[in-house]
Amino acid sequence: MRLGRQTVKFDKPPIITHTYSGVGPKETQGPFGEYFHHHFTDELNQEKSWELAEGSMIKTVIQSLLDEAKLTPKDIDYILSGDLQNQITATHLGVKDFHIPLFGLYGACSTMGEAMGLGSILVGSGTAKKVIVGASSHNATAERQFRFPMEYGGQRPLTQQWTVTGCGYIILESEGRGPKIESITTGKIVDFEVTDVTNMGAVMAPAAVDTITTHLKETNQKPTDYDAIVTGDLGNCGVGIVLDLASQMGVDLLPVMKDCGAMIYNDCEQDTHAGGSGCGCSASVFSSYWYKGLMSGKYKKILLVPTGALMSLASTQQKQSIPGIAHAVSISM
Amino acid sequence: MRLGRQTVKFDKPPIITHTYSGVGPKETQGPFGEYFHHHFTDELNQEKSWELAEGSMIKTVIQSLLDEAKLTPKDIDYILSGDLQNQITATHLGVKDFHIPLFGLYGACSTMGEAMGLGSILVGSGTAKKVIVGASSHNATAERQFRFPMEYGGQRPLTQQWTVTGCGYIILESEGRGPKIESITTGKIVDFEVTDVTNMGAVMAPAAVDTITTHLKETNQKPTDYDAIVTGDLGNCGVGIVLDLASQMGVDLLPVMKDCGAMIYNDCEQDTHAGGSGCGCSASVFSSYWYKGLMSGKYKKILLVPTGALMSLASTQQKQSIPGIAHAVSISM
Repeated sequence: MRLGRQTVKFDKPPIITHTYSGVGPKETQGPFGEYFHHHFTDELNQEKSWELAEGSMIKTVIQSLLDEAKLTPKDIDYILSGDLQNQITATHLGVKDFHIPLFGLYGACSTMGEAMGLGSILVGSGTAKKVIVGASSHNATAERQFRFPMEYGGQRPLTQQWTVTGCGYIILESEGRGPKIESITTGKIVDFEVTDVTNMGAVMAPAAVDTITTHLKETNQKPTDYDAIVTGDLGNCGVGIVLDLASQMGVDLLPVMKDCGAMIYNDCEQDTHAGGSGCGCSASVFSSYWYKGLMSGKYKKILLVPTGALMSLASTQQKQSIPGIAHAVSISM
Repeated sequence: MRLGRQTVKFDKPPIITHTYSGVGPKETQGPFGEYFHHHFTDELNQEKSWELAEGSMIKTVIQSLLDEAKLTPKDIDYILSGDLQNQITATHLGVKDFHIPLFGLYGACSTMGEAMGLGSILVGSGTAKKVIVGASSHNATAERQFRFPMEYGGQRPLTQQWTVTGCGYIILESEGRGPKIESITTGKIVDFEVTDVTNMGAVMAPAAVDTITTHLKETNQKPTDYDAIVTGDLGNCGVGIVLDLASQMGVDLLPVMKDCGAMIYNDCEQDTHAGGSGCGCSASVFSSYWYKGLMSGKYKKILLVPTGALMSLASTQQKQSIPGIAHAVSISM
C-alpha cells in the first residue's frame, strides 16, 4: 500500500530471518567489533589485490549466511546488491559462483537501503519467497579509486571519514522468525551543491533529512515512535548538520538519532577523524549490532536510513557538485 | 506468478505506454536513424565534457518522454535506470532535477533489461502505478573510461564494437494503451572465462543463451512463438556464437534472432567493425524501432534480451575474466 509519494507500507511485511556481517581489522578493533560475525584479519584476505579481496570477502559472507540459514543458493530467488567499485566489480566477483538471479544496484553508500527496499517489494508483493540483499565496501579500493594512490599518504582533513572494509548481507523471507520490514521510503536525489569530496557528511545530510522527514510525515509518526533513527554513514559532522536542518523544520531528532558511521570507530584512538563511511558501514553495523539488538528485544523499532554521496572521480575532476540520496527502511520486532 | 527459477509471469501485465529515444550523429546516420525520436547533432551536446553531455542527453529524453505522455515528474512513482560511467554519474546528472524517487542500477549493457524487469515487478505487483525506466551510454565516455584516451587513436580489432551514444527511456503503467510485458526472466552471471576486452560478443553470448533457453523452457515456448528474439548488443561476432551454442543445445534461434548491436550501424560504411554496444544500444533501438513495430502491428510478440559484460578497468588491468549477464523481457501487442 502506498502512503504518499515515497513510502510503501507492506500488508505482508517481509521478515529479516538471517544476517551475516564481515569486517576488516580496523573495524574489528572498533567499539562494535565483537558484534560482527566474521573478522577478516588481513585487508588483502589472501588475494593479490584489494579489489579481489573485497570480492572474496563478499563470497565468504554470503556462504556463511546460507550456511547459517541452512539454505543452498537454489533456495534463493534473487540477490540484490552493490558496492563502491567502478562497475560494482566486487559484487560481481562475490556473487557469481552462487548462480542466483542478480539485480545489480548502485546507490553509493545508500546501497543497503536501496537493496532492502527493492528486496522488500519483491518479497512483500509475493513475487519472491526468499531474497538475499547486501552491500560492501573496502577502504583501500575506495581510497585509490576516489581519492589518492594509497602510497601517496595524502593528509586527511578532520571532516573526512574512513571507508569501512566490510559487508553485510541479509535474507528477506515471506515466512519465518525475525524483525519485520513494515515500510520503506525511497529517496530522491537532493543536491545542496556541495563540492568538497572530503566532507561527505555535508553532502548526505540534506538527503537524510529529506527522506526521514518525508517518512515521518507519510507514515504519520513522530521521531520518538522509533527507538532509534539510524543513518548510514553521515559521520560526526553529518549528524550535526542533520540535527540542525531537522530542527529548523521543527523536527527534533536528537533523542533518537544514531549513525553507523559515527558508531563503528573510536575516532580519537583510531585516527578516523569524522567516522566511518562506505556501503559496507551501514550494511555491516545493521547486520550485526542493530539486528542482534532487535532480536534480543533491546530495540523494538528502528528506522534504518543508509545515505549515499553520488560522485565519481570524473565528476570530481570536472568540478561538479555532489548530490546525495537516502533510503529509509522501517524495521520492527 | 513465478514460473521455474528465473521467470515471473504477470497476472496484470504492465503496459509500455510511451517511449522516447535520443541518439548521437553516428547512430542518426545508421540504417535505423529515422526511427529515433531525437537526434543530437553533437557528441558534446553543448556541454564542457562528454560525461556532462551524456547527463544532459538523458535529461532531454526524460523531459520529452514526460511531455509526450502529458505527465509531470510528480505523476511518476519511481525511476529505475543506469549507465556505464563509473558510479552511474550520467544517470544521476540526468535524473536529479526531476525529483523522482530513484533506484540506481548497474547491469552494464544489460541495464535496460534489468530496469524493465524491476519496473515491471513494481507495476505488475501494484506497488507502483507509473514508473520510468531507461539506460544510456556515450561512445566517448566509454572509450576513455574502459579502453584508451580518445586522442591515442588505438587501432580497433575486427571483433570490437562501437559504443552507442544514445539512450532510451520508457513509461510502464498499470493502465493504458501499448504493448504488454507478459513475463520477465532475470539472468544470473555466466562466466566463460573470456578475458579479451575487445570481444564483448564472446563474453555476453553464453549469458544470452543461458537466459533465452531458460526463458523458453520455463514459459514452455519455442523460439518461433516469438516474431523476434532481440538481444541487446552481441554484435555480429556474438550473434554467431549464440546461434552455435543454442544449436548445440538443440534450440534453433536462426529464424527469429535479431540483435540491436548488429542493427544500429552499417558496419562496412560506418567503420564500426562488429556492431554497436553500450546500455544505450538496446535501450534506444527498443524504444524506437521495436516499439514502433509493435505499435503498428508489424510485430506481435518479441523477446528483448539486453546483454551485459561485467568488467571494469581495474578487473581488466588485474587480468580477471569478464563474466556476462542477460535479462529477458517478453513483450506482446
